[in-house]
Amino acid sequence: MAIDYKKELETAAKNMILVHEPHVLIKMIVRMLVQKVKITHAGILLHDQQRDTYILTVSRGPSGIKIPAGFARIDSDNPLIRFFKEHLDRKFFEFSAIIYEETGKLLKKKIDEDTKQLLKQVLYQMEIFQAVVCIPNYYRDELMGVVFLGEKKDGKRFSAKEIDFFIAVGSDVAMAIRNAQLFSELQSELDKKYRLFIHTTVALAAAIDAKDHYTHGHTARVTNLSLEIAKKLGQKDKKLIDEKFLERLHISGLLHDIGKIGVPESILNKEGPLTDEERKKMREHPLVGAAILQPIKELEDSILGVKYHHENYDGSGYPEGLKGEQIPLIASIISVADTFDAMTTDRPYRRGLSKQEAVEEIKRVSGRQFDSLIADALIELYAERKI
Amino acid sequence: MAIDYKKELETAAKNMILVHEPHVLIKMIVRMLVQKVKITHAGILLHDQQRDTYILTVSRGPSGIKIPAGFARIDSDNPLIRFFKEHLDRKFFEFSAIIYEETGKLLKKKIDEDTKQLLKQVLYQMEIFQAVVCIPNYYRDELMGVVFLGEKKDGKRFSAKEIDFFIAVGSDVAMAIRNAQLFSELQSELDKKYRLFIHTTVALAAAIDAKDHYTHGHTARVTNLSLEIAKKLGQKDKKLIDEKFLERLHISGLLHDIGKIGVPESILNKEGPLTDEERKKMREHPLVGAAILQPIKELEDSILGVKYHHENYDGSGYPEGLKGEQIPLIASIISVADTFDAMTTDRPYRRGLSKQEAVEEIKRVSGRQFDSLIADALIELYAERKI
Repeated sequence: MAIDYKKELETAAKNMILVHEPHVLIKMIVRMLVQKVKITHAGILLHDQQRDTYILTVSRGPSGIKIPAGFARIDSDNPLIRFFKEHLDRKFFEFSAIIYEETGKLLKKKIDEDTKQLLKQVLYQMEIFQAVVCIPNYYRDELMGVVFLGEKKDGKRFSAKEIDFFIAVGSDVAMAIRNAQLFSELQSELDKKYRLFIHTTVALAAAIDAKDHYTHGHTARVTNLSLEIAKKLGQKDKKLIDEKFLERLHISGLLHDIGKIGVPESILNKEGPLTDEERKKMREHPLVGAAILQPIKELEDSILGVKYHHENYDGSGYPEGLKGEQIPLIASIISVADTFDAMTTDRPYRRGLSKQEAVEEIKRVSGRQFDSLIADALIELYAERKI
Repeated sequence: MAIDYKKELETAAKNMILVHEPHVLIKMIVRMLVQKVKITHAGILLHDQQRDTYILTVSRGPSGIKIPAGFARIDSDNPLIRFFKEHLDRKFFEFSAIIYEETGKLLKKKIDEDTKQLLKQVLYQMEIFQAVVCIPNYYRDELMGVVFLGEKKDGKRFSAKEIDFFIAVGSDVAMAIRNAQLFSELQSELDKKYRLFIHTTVALAAAIDAKDHYTHGHTARVTNLSLEIAKKLGQKDKKLIDEKFLERLHISGLLHDIGKIGVPESILNKEGPLTDEERKKMREHPLVGAAILQPIKELEDSILGVKYHHENYDGSGYPEGLKGEQIPLIASIISVADTFDAMTTDRPYRRGLSKQEAVEEIKRVSGRQFDSLIADALIELYAERKI
């Protein structure tokens, strides 16, 4: 066998360990086999533990390949799978792989009828895959997959040594697949936990929101609008907005009015304008919200949005009267979204503005109440009919 | 070289890919080297990316070993590390490994003064480790670690072929370490997300709790007591309580009174007994809580505790008047903990009971209001002075 491709294949097999997405890994292995071993095509049947079936991934083969287009899964009682699962009697097989030609010869010998029937089915399956060799990939006692190889491009047969080598590579493949599966399980566990966190926060924030009868759905709308504004800013300046920032903004939007839990219902739901005393109480909500969340170290950056979403660009806002660049970006974005939503929502004592009117008003106070960069992003979104 | 240990070591190196805790992996590698290669001792210097130092793990060596006990880290400007990082001129070195004896000879040859100085320091470092060979573990261009080997037990030298083999194993080691690091990063990401979820839930639940002026800290106490009761039940019957159950109970405890957000403050904070109408409103809180959380699929099991924590064993509770085994275990546990905390808390119109009195009362209604199995667990916790 050509020693050069062996070395290359060994190195490639090692490197695949760090590919942690099972389907990417499988494609890589198939491509690698075809390129390095110089065969017409190759494929893998990969065990799907949850459904106990085997998923087929196959390289683009020669025109005559018989695998139907939609044929992407085979059952675990397929003869090929059964053969490898049942660890058939080794006395008939020199290798733990199946070689089409050798197996054909075996059928003419005196073997028991059950084995003969199974082998016939196995060979038929190999014909469908146009496979010359099938190599099982075991991890411990589990059949993780089956690799199959088409003919060599030079038309020669695989040597015994080559088959032996593929079996060794097969165990690397099994290990890599197992590793990738564990990785992707952990990754989906992570996604699940994050969704749980977001959904619970959405539910609790909405419940608190509901205490304020006039602002039904306010939190969800402000969160969405804030994210739209941030993405628009990101189009203009990629360095300004990254995934992490969007994540923090998402959380901050959901929690921005959480401090209203500390404002008495009588003030929240009062019809008509508030007295000075009541307004003072109402204006405590950013600080109350920040105080509620302050013990949560991971929310440090999101808390800035909660605490400062009522600051104004010209320093006329609260709680601290911050000015211009002193106001964290996350808070400036929520501020614009919050104001826009408040203006366009009906109250018992006044009808909400139309979006057109609200945008005009945002334009008017841009550079004073709002950072014009962010006000402009909202104005553009409106011009593009995205809000 | 003895071909048998080579095969074994290769297999072992492959299997280590599925060890995903870096420090366990390192110990395994060191033990494997000592056992399979039959050397006096072995060690690894593992790169700690965050602190840019190298952590030393070493097998128990011969009595004379010179490594001081607390000497667990070396700086990245240590000569040994510098040597491998700087990929020293290959013309002096047959292998990319350092062999003590060969390197000693090199010093007598004509080499530039800087290299000579560095090599002297390298050899001094190897003396401290009593190392005969040092093998670098590169992953791409990064020096992941350095493996060092003590003398062979039979006193013989390592052959050139053996050194070559160790270099190959070294690349497996680097890959395994990198893989384990990625895995443990993902795992700690997962832990972080879960903590974020719990902490945010704690903060929001506490904020809602605070609306009810009379029950300060109630949610936290009920959650803790519920977990204690569950653990006690688990001591008696391991099948009843597993980690997953404790996780669900934790969340359920934190959220059990979340529905109080729907009860007007005037009722929550009323001094003196409630009217029928007010009591009816108050008694809606389990259903309101369940409705708030209902969209969150992952909380399905925890919601049962929120919805049914006011059911009684004899069917006299609310909202559904469930009886006995119809009441989910999670709800029965929270029910006992909730009642105990309510009884022992002062209200403006009555002083709370002492713990002794409350336990007596729980005993009295056990089998009627409460499942006696769970009441007994609380009674035992009290007897053991754990509550």
